[in-house]
Amino acid sequence: MKCIILDKTLEYDGSQISSLWAYNLADVQADSIIAFRGGCDVKIEHMIDLEDKKQGDMIFSTDMVHFIIEHFDSTDLKLVYARQRLFTAIVAEVLSEYRNDLIRKGDDLFVDGKKLTVSIASTSAVSQKIHFGINVMHDYYGSLEDIGICNDDVLKLMEKIAKSYYNEFIDIELDLRKSRPLDVI
Amino acid sequence: MKCIILDKTLEYDGSQISSLWAYNLADVQADSIIAFRGGCDVKIEHMIDLEDKKQGDMIFSTDMVHFIIEHFDSTDLKLVYARQRLFTAIVAEVLSEYRNDLIRKGDDLFVDGKKLTVSIASTSAVSQKIHFGINVMHDYYGSLEDIGICNDDVLKLMEKIAKSYYNEFIDIELDLRKSRPLDVI
Amino acid sequence: MKCIILDKTLEYDGSQISSLWAYNLADVQADSIIAFRGGCDVKIEHMIDLEDKKQGDMIFSTDMVHFIIEHFDSTDLKLVYARQRLFTAIVAEVLSEYRNDLIRKGDDLFVDGKKLTVSIASTSAVSQKIHFGINVMHDYYGSLEDIGICNDDVLKLMEKIAKSYYNEFIDIELDLRKSRPLDVI
Amino acid sequence: MKCIILDKTLEYDGSQISSLWAYNLADVQADSIIAFRGGCDVKIEHMIDLEDKKQGDMIFSTDMVHFIIEHFDSTDLKLVYARQRLFTAIVAEVLSEYRNDLIRKGDDLFVDGKKLTVSIASTSAVSQKIHFGINVMHDYYGSLEDIGICNDDVLKLMEKIAKSYYNEFIDIELDLRKSRPLDVI
Amino acid sequence: MKCIILDKTLEYDGSQISSLWAYNLADVQADSIIAFRGGCDVKIEHMIDLEDKKQGDMIFSTDMVHFIIEHFDSTDLKLVYARQRLFTAIVAEVLSEYRNDLIRKGDDLFVDGKKLTVSIASTSAVSQKIHFGINVMHDYYGSLEDIGICNDDVLKLMEKIAKSYYNEFIDIELDLRKSRPLDVI
Amino acid sequence: MKCIILDKTLEYDGSQISSLWAYNLADVQADSIIAFRGGCDVKIEHMIDLEDKKQGDMIFSTDMVHFIIEHFDSTDLKLVYARQRLFTAIVAEVLSEYRNDLIRKGDDLFVDGKKLTVSIASTSAVSQKIHFGINVMHDYYGSLEDIGICNDDVLKLMEKIAKSYYNEFIDIELDLRKSRPLDVI
Repeated sequence: MKCIILDKTLEYDGSQISSLWAYNLADVQADSIIAFRGGCDVKIEHMIDLEDKKQGDMIFSTDMVHFIIEHFDSTDLKLVYARQRLFTAIVAEVLSEYRNDLIRKGDDLFVDGKKLTVSIASTSAVSQKIHFGINVMHDYYGSLEDIGICNDDVLKLMEKIAKSYYNEFIDIELDLRKSRPLDVI
Repeated sequence: MKCIILDKTLEYDGSQISSLWAYNLADVQADSIIAFRGGCDVKIEHMIDLEDKKQGDMIFSTDMVHFIIEHFDSTDLKLVYARQRLFTAIVAEVLSEYRNDLIRKGDDLFVDGKKLTVSIASTSAVSQKIHFGINVMHDYYGSLEDIGICNDDVLKLMEKIAKSYYNEFIDIELDLRKSRPLDVI
Repeated sequence: MKCIILDKTLEYDGSQISSLWAYNLADVQADSIIAFRGGCDVKIEHMIDLEDKKQGDMIFSTDMVHFIIEHFDSTDLKLVYARQRLFTAIVAEVLSEYRNDLIRKGDDLFVDGKKLTVSIASTSAVSQKIHFGINVMHDYYGSLEDIGICNDDVLKLMEKIAKSYYNEFIDIELDLRKSRPLDVI
Repeated sequence: MKCIILDKTLEYDGSQISSLWAYNLADVQADSIIAFRGGCDVKIEHMIDLEDKKQGDMIFSTDMVHFIIEHFDSTDLKLVYARQRLFTAIVAEVLSEYRNDLIRKGDDLFVDGKKLTVSIASTSAVSQKIHFGINVMHDYYGSLEDIGICNDDVLKLMEKIAKSYYNEFIDIELDLRKSRPLDVI
Repeated sequence: MKCIILDKTLEYDGSQISSLWAYNLADVQADSIIAFRGGCDVKIEHMIDLEDKKQGDMIFSTDMVHFIIEHFDSTDLKLVYARQRLFTAIVAEVLSEYRNDLIRKGDDLFVDGKKLTVSIASTSAVSQKIHFGINVMHDYYGSLEDIGICNDDVLKLMEKIAKSYYNEFIDIELDLRKSRPLDVI
Repeated sequence: MKCIILDKTLEYDGSQISSLWAYNLADVQADSIIAFRGGCDVKIEHMIDLEDKKQGDMIFSTDMVHFIIEHFDSTDLKLVYARQRLFTAIVAEVLSEYRNDLIRKGDDLFVDGKKLTVSIASTSAVSQKIHFGINVMHDYYGSLEDIGICNDDVLKLMEKIAKSYYNEFIDIELDLRKSRPLDVI
């Protein structure tokens, strides 16, 4: 698995959730988590969550940190959703160093009752992907600013979150290779 | 999925990790999370983690709360390990109401640098299972007592943790039924 | 699993076989069987069975009862086809109360040598689906009319068939949760 | 897939449900349905259905026709249970030529309110298997005799049922090779 | 599995890698390997390998032998890639009768340091496919001519390669039906 | 994936085919190929191939090189058998530097009409494994000696074969991460 932090700004428009985006962007031929910073303006044709699409939801933010995760080891919907929830919990754990009263509900994080994040997960015939975005600043929704994370700390935070998921993944791969099958009653 | 809290004490000896234990115990014909309280003394023949077995590790505690999770929807090792990590994060979230400085490392929780929990996950040909135990009191390892959870609150805690995992599972099952497949670049 | 009978007429044009149709129609976030009544006029671009497409088959009927089944628990082609055949057998069983000389050949039912039904099954990256349609009246093909089911009984029939499949599914889910793995010679 | 009718009597003692029994018996290196006639006396250690085991159920009959199905194409529990239900429906269809008032409930058939059959399905790490037994004669339970099938017709019946499942399997394998993937809304 | 040698020339333009091409071409309702001879000119919209697409690679040859393999038994990427490598090794084995100094690197064969072949593998929601092309003559790349295979022998070669893969597949299907599951330490 | 050459002699008695042998031997928590040298004397209770077991085959050799491959990424029988065949082809390729007239038939290699190798593949609920053994010397069967590989070259050969499979595996994992899903006709 590769862990990559892009150093240039990139707007998330929903095309990045497509399978093989990492390969097209940076010749990544591995499972990967790629973090970058930029606005968020998801075009209707890239909306994966039909609830958003149906409600004509605007998924818009001027400044976010984004994480794009891709795994090629399985195309099981249940697995990518379990991983998405685990990633959300990891983000909460990392942010708890700044504010320890964040609330996680499924794939959403809340600060002071305000939604701080957006996320989606799905699969194609060749890979599974997760997008997770956190507002850096926002007039209406929650943001890193509300948590007390200033602009200078954002890059470090991106690295910390991406690295935590990477480490969790590696750790799981190790653990599942030392457990024998279950007995059966 | 069923969420069950046993009202009688039961010692975890490792046989409970076997597939179909819930059916044998209580005719449960559903995915389930079952919580109970009791000692922990895992016999060598029931050890699933070969690292423990190899090291002749004693998995012993006089008083724990135990959670036994069983899913029949897949026998994928990767899925049960992602679920185990997610469950561990959920336990940390619930306990954070009492102490918000717990540390999660993979499937372990630590309080004041002391290991608080034991856990294992694996599969048979018919189901996947997770055991997760938390010391209620312990002379050497961390315990609920260290977190400030008194005896009277243990049952409530068991219910809260079990219910949280149950709700997460239901929420995931709902979410994955409104996401369309990924585009491909 | 949800079992839904639509009370308004709807023409089956082939778009209903798409994944997530149930969510778009009625916010269904569950495996489901949805029954409705209406004409059938499948557009060439919605034809899933390439044999029909190739032969320029007209899949047309002015009045049918339709069943749309969606499962998100697997995208295995073999499973959805086994379920389609099972559903066909269930329809035959329900109809046998009216006429017990129906013939099932794969996913087709015949009455007096006339084809009574149309059906298709397939998968996308996120779900598996089955369409099954039964002529209510037809000049050339077999119909419920031939079986002696009058207009007033059609709704009851739709409910009975949908409920039977629902019950079968629930029953299977229960049964597979009490069987231990096989021995091996 | 092979379809084999054994010409010598064999008692079903539960060992025949083990994976690879067909290979051991007759060097069968294919998916298979094997039919034979003989008593039924399942030893407790071969009971796959834990409900039977728990209740100390005696699975006993002096004269049955048995069908043993083995597939190596998947070890998915959901698939083998869907196939078991489909097989049960097929048996009912074949028997309906003699008596058309048989009732199927899940994997059981009933005649005159009396249970006519026993069945179990499960998987190992290498194959999935189904056992299905029908009483030829029985003092208490239903039997082929009740249906009006005399001793001389039993062999023909065995062939007809086995061949019907074989044909259904072949037909499914053909059908799933001409259906394109689903569209997605 | 079907093994088919087309007797008329056909240019490979990349559309043949689509799922269900064999059914559309020749009503093939089976896993299949189809061999044909013709030019190669892959349109950009049919390029499956994004490396080729990215580099604007021209996949062009005036005279090749082509093999198109389709399996419906799984949509696992890992399996189709293992099969692609195995097929490449089989081609090398067959060609070794003419020249035994061919080099295989992954899915490529080289003669005298010149690339002799092109290949791609992928999956859709319903099948897995492999394309493998070998230059018959080529000014720049390696070709059958370099190996000493003249025009008259090309058809025989096509038959031999296709038949070898077919036999390997059948042999694997037999072998996996006589092996018991592994023990576990 | 780890590639390990044991420097001490070890007799293959069949226990090494068990899942998690590599972990027990050397704390390997990765997919792995482990090569070692030693006799071969497979006990009847460790025979995986029932044909051998049935025929009371003696799988015996005084001096072999052994390769034990374990993958935890899937428990699909079809995948482990495709990998076994691919490994066999790789061994033939490496040995072709010494003798280029070896014959591969499935998972067997032959030199001068004499069988040179033994191999088996299977799965448990947690991993898939392959054993492949090559006679170093043998009175009756083929051996490395027949190929012209002397004792001093055996270690180098073990390294070369193990490394070739390792490289092939890595190469496949890279390749499958740059291919988009198939189109569908």
